[in-house]
Amino acid sequence: MSEKKIFLMGLGSVGRNLLSLLVNENFHNAVGKKFVLVGAADSRNIIFDEKGFSPELVLESKTNKALDSAGTVLKKLPGADEVDIFVDMSTASKDGKRELSIYSDYLKSGKSVITSNKSPLANFWPEIMKLAEEGKGSILYESTVCGGLPLFNMVKSALPEMEISSFRGIVNLTANYILENMRRGGTKEEAINNAIKEGFAETDYFDDVSGLDSARKTVIVANSLFGTQLRLKDQKFEGIESGTEFHKGTRKMLISSIKKTQDGVLAQSRIEDVNESDKFYSLKAKAMAYEIKPILRAPIFVSEDYDGPLETSIGVLSDLISLLN
Amino acid sequence: MSEKKIFLMGLGSVGRNLLSLLVNENFHNAVGKKFVLVGAADSRNIIFDEKGFSPELVLESKTNKALDSAGTVLKKLPGADEVDIFVDMSTASKDGKRELSIYSDYLKSGKSVITSNKSPLANFWPEIMKLAEEGKGSILYESTVCGGLPLFNMVKSALPEMEISSFRGIVNLTANYILENMRRGGTKEEAINNAIKEGFAETDYFDDVSGLDSARKTVIVANSLFGTQLRLKDQKFEGIESGTEFHKGTRKMLISSIKKTQDGVLAQSRIEDVNESDKFYSLKAKAMAYEIKPILRAPIFVSEDYDGPLETSIGVLSDLISLLN
Repeated sequence: MSEKKIFLMGLGSVGRNLLSLLVNENFHNAVGKKFVLVGAADSRNIIFDEKGFSPELVLESKTNKALDSAGTVLKKLPGADEVDIFVDMSTASKDGKRELSIYSDYLKSGKSVITSNKSPLANFWPEIMKLAEEGKGSILYESTVCGGLPLFNMVKSALPEMEISSFRGIVNLTANYILENMRRGGTKEEAINNAIKEGFAETDYFDDVSGLDSARKTVIVANSLFGTQLRLKDQKFEGIESGTEFHKGTRKMLISSIKKTQDGVLAQSRIEDVNESDKFYSLKAKAMAYEIKPILRAPIFVSEDYDGPLETSIGVLSDLISLLN
Repeated sequence: MSEKKIFLMGLGSVGRNLLSLLVNENFHNAVGKKFVLVGAADSRNIIFDEKGFSPELVLESKTNKALDSAGTVLKKLPGADEVDIFVDMSTASKDGKRELSIYSDYLKSGKSVITSNKSPLANFWPEIMKLAEEGKGSILYESTVCGGLPLFNMVKSALPEMEISSFRGIVNLTANYILENMRRGGTKEEAINNAIKEGFAETDYFDDVSGLDSARKTVIVANSLFGTQLRLKDQKFEGIESGTEFHKGTRKMLISSIKKTQDGVLAQSRIEDVNESDKFYSLKAKAMAYEIKPILRAPIFVSEDYDGPLETSIGVLSDLISLLN
């Protein structure tokens, strides 16, 4: 089998972590010979070389803020003939339109897209899935929800063809870290500053605090696991209000909750009161977690105490390995 | 692609649940045309038909205690030419030798084996893996550990090529249910009777209470996730003692614990004191759970409140689907 040509868009913290993983010995031994990294793009430059770059060189150039020094600079993204797997790790755009247009070119030609970018899937799920189906390429998106906590690939491998009756999860770390800081006595502003100091509030934390990020993820989980065709524009959601009141023995959490009802699938992204008898109550302030209930079997609870760009990049990596193997 | 010929050995509660799943609409639509059920065996009879049985007929005959009425009765298991995927859901034998001999015939010929039976893998891991590798067939064993809680397939899909530094888990439900009943004031005998009444103590509960079942699973996890070549005969383990003393604010749990140390991999199956700050402390009496710590990323905690033969059979099903797709 010939090597797959991989192109990376987005070299922020997730993209740079992925580059580091690509040179990790275990991974290199397992699939290093199955791909060639033909190019990469950050917000300013696009580099391309059909013979391939070493991930080290791209990482080094990016770290030195001189991505364009690594190779030939293109004015636009390479065409579908030049790429087999397009990996999007860029920041979510407001409406997802630009990403849709990019994915469309690759998917139409039967190429595959891996994305950690929520916006295109939350806004244009029906279009993107149709493009992937018609072109017979793949669209993989493990790391769009719950950062690096295994979700979609876990369901695919462990609960194949299982009907899901409900999902409940902390899918956005930052909002819940801020809420927990507020419960411990901080104001909303102090809590946001704490999250920025800790390094995991996204530069533009508005999407986290407003609840938009959690809403995007809610739409993606509903569409992926419950077969809906929801769009972000129709999804109601709540965000964090200043002066939120907390009650003793209760936490407040921004929770994504999706369930099958007699009237169809109900998808919500809301601030919930969580009391001591709730599995979510004892989660750490920086945790991600979800409980998924298949119709046939016992619910499965999955959590981690913290999550970051490295974990998210491992989610991207697991998608990449599944396409290479 | 031609249909895969499947043979089922063991029609206890796990085997019968699997037969029910095989006629489930979702599963049938997805992979029903990819296999033919050529036969099945319980502890008394072996039936075989190269044209295939309907899973309903096998289930009905077994339920009526007349498996032999379903079709041609063989005196021994069908040869490797007659089977593509051999599924072993029989009760663990004492030494695993019989299973090794059976698997050997199929694996040598490049056929695949799926097993929920711990004994052969705990006793003959090196031999079985060598046979699978040389024959280029697969040996899959998702449901040998933690019943139906996703473990090996989760790791494979979500943590590909990741080095694991530690694993800690409740891998045997019955022992921990008995310990929790004892903590609540019952004697060992009363607690065992409770477990039998609840229907999840295995008919011969000796393996659960003595700790042997947990030890078998510890060996399998170590070999699978840490690359060891352990055998049950070399594995020390603890079981449940009458008159165990419990301390306030502490539970006792039979825990499988495996970690990389400077001196190699340390695998233990012991009764541990678990205090309130421990994630395992708040688990239900019938829970299965584990925490797995990769070297690179945040540990992942996975749990379920209960587990039974249906959950285990779904683990077998997920292995089966992965071979059919």
